[in-house]
Amino acid sequence: MIDGVSPLTKAIGRVRSLDEAAMAAARSRQQTMTKPPGSLGRLEELAVWLAGVRRTERPRLERKLVVIAAADHGVARRGVSAYPQAVTAQMVANIISGGAAVNALARHAGVEVLAVDAGVIEPLAPREGLHSLPIGQGTDDMTVGPAMRRDQALACLEAGVELAARLQADAVVLGDMGIGNTTAAAALAAVFTGASPETVCGPGTGLDTEGVRTKVAAVETALAVNRPDAEDPIGVLAAVGGFELGFLAGVAIGTAARGVPVVLDGYPTTAAALVAAALCADVLPYLLASHRSAEPGHAVALDHLGLTPLLDLGLRLGEGTGGLLALGLLEAAARVHDEMATFEEAGVSGPAAKQPAT
Amino acid sequence: MIDGVSPLTKAIGRVRSLDEAAMAAARSRQQTMTKPPGSLGRLEELAVWLAGVRRTERPRLERKLVVIAAADHGVARRGVSAYPQAVTAQMVANIISGGAAVNALARHAGVEVLAVDAGVIEPLAPREGLHSLPIGQGTDDMTVGPAMRRDQALACLEAGVELAARLQADAVVLGDMGIGNTTAAAALAAVFTGASPETVCGPGTGLDTEGVRTKVAAVETALAVNRPDAEDPIGVLAAVGGFELGFLAGVAIGTAARGVPVVLDGYPTTAAALVAAALCADVLPYLLASHRSAEPGHAVALDHLGLTPLLDLGLRLGEGTGGLLALGLLEAAARVHDEMATFEEAGVSGPAAKQPAT
Repeated sequence: MIDGVSPLTKAIGRVRSLDEAAMAAARSRQQTMTKPPGSLGRLEELAVWLAGVRRTERPRLERKLVVIAAADHGVARRGVSAYPQAVTAQMVANIISGGAAVNALARHAGVEVLAVDAGVIEPLAPREGLHSLPIGQGTDDMTVGPAMRRDQALACLEAGVELAARLQADAVVLGDMGIGNTTAAAALAAVFTGASPETVCGPGTGLDTEGVRTKVAAVETALAVNRPDAEDPIGVLAAVGGFELGFLAGVAIGTAARGVPVVLDGYPTTAAALVAAALCADVLPYLLASHRSAEPGHAVALDHLGLTPLLDLGLRLGEGTGGLLALGLLEAAARVHDEMATFEEAGVSGPAAKQPAT
Repeated sequence: MIDGVSPLTKAIGRVRSLDEAAMAAARSRQQTMTKPPGSLGRLEELAVWLAGVRRTERPRLERKLVVIAAADHGVARRGVSAYPQAVTAQMVANIISGGAAVNALARHAGVEVLAVDAGVIEPLAPREGLHSLPIGQGTDDMTVGPAMRRDQALACLEAGVELAARLQADAVVLGDMGIGNTTAAAALAAVFTGASPETVCGPGTGLDTEGVRTKVAAVETALAVNRPDAEDPIGVLAAVGGFELGFLAGVAIGTAARGVPVVLDGYPTTAAALVAAALCADVLPYLLASHRSAEPGHAVALDHLGLTPLLDLGLRLGEGTGGLLALGLLEAAARVHDEMATFEEAGVSGPAAKQPAT
């Protein structure tokens, strides 16, 4: 904290509206490019949006980053995941070694990978490419009390904001890894959207019907035990959140404060966005919804945020995988916008009605 | 022709079923990779499909190509396009100069661009990157007679097959350019799917309601005048097709015959696929539907072919633009499939139910 104002508070104060002038210039440019107006559909919208975020008519994405935050969840002990909790740490090691799905996609898209231990139970040795937070080792079981203390909730948000301030990137993809984290995501979604636990709980990594029932019951119990108040986002995060989700919410706010687009992935990263948007509604225009995951609650969370996903490919892996696919589309949109010839440059005629009669 | 058998006939005879053994091996590999089974949704399906097409468990896409075929359409004189016919030649020049949307997307995706003059009215000087066919300069007006002679229909199919035989590529994207070609696409779609002209005609590059009515009337007249028979695909192509559409149908057949995936773009390339599939149903498994365009008839044609598009971004530009975006997803799927660590390699635990009790 500097001058009594926390980095989180400062970052929230720094999130500006998108640059309308840059967007207007980008819209005008789109009209001059050698294609029928509107014929590139969402690619055109993406280019205009990116211009507003980056505050320039012709933005490029040179440096791209995926931040994969990992943590464990006490609620995993309630049997809410198809996988054992040890998988969280094992998958962080796999990501650092370059063997996970997100690594292959990052190599394909030319994106740097940063793994963050935001609170994994098993100690992870310091390694290049791993950023470790000293906040906790796995949350507590939200079905018997708050997942974390309020100061921990604040600490993971602050850590996200502080990391974001140091990132040199033109676009940041949020990724997650954490056995049990779709249960925390569901609980956050239930609080912030008002939807029922049945509506926001799904199979996650592969629960059967009985497993989903167990998950719904865990969320119901967590809400009854903690009585989180949607008007107190930090309290909600402490009650039913996760270290990685709070951290990612902080990254989203800090990234928006720097005027850089935030690309969401699936359910957990969107739950983090619910926390971020509850703390700072001005973050919303900086968010890109990459895909609609197979997890049913994801669409509920996206709807609440007013976001329309770019892709619908039945993904439910996390790690930022869907975000990287969408980032490829965003970069494509930016390149088309920057590189295409105008009608004048190319000597191409405009619509027939606007031509002199010949 | 060699030994009295045309290249088209030979290519049709060479299209094999997908390699079931390679697909089974790819499916098995997907189960061993460090992710919940099925969690990469359509990316997993794409990887397995590509294995079947390329006849190998772990296919890669090293050389990628977009073939953009351009031609003019006599029916354009009926006012069925928002743009003057001269735009076809102008846009071919723009593509060769690298200023079109497809060029920016091809650079982004690392894809080689090949432009083909399949029958543009205005003479195009020979240039590097331009392949010219000596078949005709624009089709005739299909509302007063057949668009082309039967020998021309056969010639553009043969030219496509012959070009495909020479392409060194692991994936071929089909692209189109031709003022008036969504009218030809609509007429082909009406014949092959049995849908009404109203159902398959849309605004194309930007017609208003009256313009769409004109287009529907043109297709109705063309069908009444020519009475094409869906059982005679070459006759249909001659009656209401286009040089570039016949050529692309030939490229599709020739590419499938070489065991290489064919990535469709929007409505015209999908109409070309209708011709190809009518000539050789075995081509179908080699086709990838990249996107559902904003042109309403496109979905009708895709449904008829039994293809589910990967993307739905409101595109309606053509040139292969949507195909290149989907190619990025296909390549991502292939890289994940080839590069990910297995559970064993990474020392990651499988699902909890399969673990010994601890």
